[in-house]
Amino acid sequence: MATDSRTRMVQSAALLLRERGLSGTSFRDVIEHSGAPRGSIYHHFPEGKRQLVREAVEMSGGWVGDAIAHLDESGDPIATLHAFLGVWADILRASDFRAGCPVVAVSVEANDDEPEVTEAAAAAFRRWTRELAAGLERSGMEAEGARRLATLTVAAIEGAVVLCRAERSTQPLDDVGAELEASLRAALVSA
Amino acid sequence: MATDSRTRMVQSAALLLRERGLSGTSFRDVIEHSGAPRGSIYHHFPEGKRQLVREAVEMSGGWVGDAIAHLDESGDPIATLHAFLGVWADILRASDFRAGCPVVAVSVEANDDEPEVTEAAAAAFRRWTRELAAGLERSGMEAEGARRLATLTVAAIEGAVVLCRAERSTQPLDDVGAELEASLRAALVSA
Repeated sequence: MATDSRTRMVQSAALLLRERGLSGTSFRDVIEHSGAPRGSIYHHFPEGKRQLVREAVEMSGGWVGDAIAHLDESGDPIATLHAFLGVWADILRASDFRAGCPVVAVSVEANDDEPEVTEAAAAAFRRWTRELAAGLERSGMEAEGARRLATLTVAAIEGAVVLCRAERSTQPLDDVGAELEASLRAALVSA
Repeated sequence: MATDSRTRMVQSAALLLRERGLSGTSFRDVIEHSGAPRGSIYHHFPEGKRQLVREAVEMSGGWVGDAIAHLDESGDPIATLHAFLGVWADILRASDFRAGCPVVAVSVEANDDEPEVTEAAAAAFRRWTRELAAGLERSGMEAEGARRLATLTVAAIEGAVVLCRAERSTQPLDDVGAELEASLRAALVSA
């Protein structure tokens, strides 16, 4: 039970971060959202908010990284791309365009007081890029090109999600997805 | 003088937003940063923080939009791309990777209380996309493809800036720039 309540707090932090950002998410919000008893959050996260946020970013980074690795087993980078675009479109629509990526939320308020939070965000972006690049290499691309195209994919999808939230529409994600698919096809044909 | 002090407040808001985000930027921060007298901010922005933030987003959107339109006069979309990548790399390095895009900062904390702020962010992204697409069309691309490639460019550069801040490195921007240049070249050759 102790572990469950701790995990719930980390999950709540991730869900709140993606809607409200780093400054906009307080310990009190996480307590309310997770239904955890007030004292327990200090017990579970003795280093305070930065520890909770770091773990929320690590959990999100792990989930997405594992999902990419799992999808990649299909051996079809285009299918992996579309699975991702579909998940994002669902999150955006289900949240009425309020929810984005908690890793981006943390990165745009990066400051020197919380280097471990920024480092966790960087590790998440690196893992996603590495998993995508590994799939492209298995499809025949050379390492350097695969890394660059994987970085474009992560950056463009994250950027498109930001545009979608502002526009309250999935159109930017649809446009970026079509362009990324074209880039992937061109790279895989010449690989 | 009154106008200058008002403009300074809007500029300060834009500079603070790109480092601290929406929740992390208060009226008090803007007063301190701009050196404006405390009372004057309520005089100039009777609607409060949302008005100041909206104007900061509009100013940033206008600057960048005008810059793209001006660069595009060269008639070389690749040169426009590199000019942008260069400006972003300079901002990231000069701020020790603390500063990003104020329009992104506002978009990731979008909420229903401040629809006009979100709308200003959407208008900025749309203007940039439209200016880039216009340049691509002048170089011979058809409208639909130009719009999609322009959206990819805006989304990927904004996403790359977020990755750069987390990684404290311009490598993601360099990688994304190389991929975008390849996409532009391919699109312009077949246009």
